[in-house]
Amino acid sequence: MPKPPYYAVVFTALRRERPGDGYAATAARMDELARAQPGFLGVESARGADGLGITVSYWESADAVSAWAANAEHLLAQRMGRDEWYQWYALRVCRVERATEFARPESA
Amino acid sequence: MPKPPYYAVVFTALRRERPGDGYAATAARMDELARAQPGFLGVESARGADGLGITVSYWESADAVSAWAANAEHLLAQRMGRDEWYQWYALRVCRVERATEFARPESA
Repeated sequence: MPKPPYYAVVFTALRRERPGDGYAATAARMDELARAQPGFLGVESARGADGLGITVSYWESADAVSAWAANAEHLLAQRMGRDEWYQWYALRVCRVERATEFARPESA
Repeated sequence: MPKPPYYAVVFTALRRERPGDGYAATAARMDELARAQPGFLGVESARGADGLGITVSYWESADAVSAWAANAEHLLAQRMGRDEWYQWYALRVCRVERATEFARPESA
C-alpha cells in the first residue's frame, strides 16, 4: 500500500440493467485507460446482489485525479453514464490521511 | 448528500468463509452501533462474487471517526476480524474534499 497522503475517488452507483447497452465494454476500456494514467496507484471494485456498485480508485495527487476526470475518452464514458447506464451515482474525491493493512500470517 | 468537507472510512476486505464463525451477527450489530454513533452520516457496502467487500462509512469529522474506532464493542469486533474473519483488509481514513451526485430524472 502507498504511504499517505494520496487520493481516493469513491464512486458509488446503481446501474440500470439493459441488455446490449454497451456498458461492459466501456467499463473494461476505462479500467485499462485508468491504469495507464500518470499517478494511478490502484483500483478496487465490488458489486452487491442489490445492484449497488462501489469502485474506489487511488491516485498520487489531486492533479492526477483531475487529469483523469478530464481525459477525452473518459468524458465520453461519463456522458454515457448519465445518458444511459446509471440510475444514480455519487462521486467523492478524498484525501487519504491514514491507511492500515492487515494480512493473515500464512500459518493461521 | 452532506456538503464537504467530511470524512470517509474505506474498508476493503477479503473474508475467510467459515460456517458458524459468528460474522453475520457481529456485522449486523456493528452496523446498528455505527448508526447510533455521534457524527455518523451514512454507510454504503458492496460485496462481489470474487469475495472482495468494500464498505464506506461517512462521518462528520476525524474526531467522530476516532471515537467510533475506539468504541469498546467495536474494538472487540476488530479483534475478532483479525483473529478469525479476515484473510486481508485495508482501512483508509479519508477527508472528502469534493462530492457530486447524479440522479436520473423520473421520466428518463
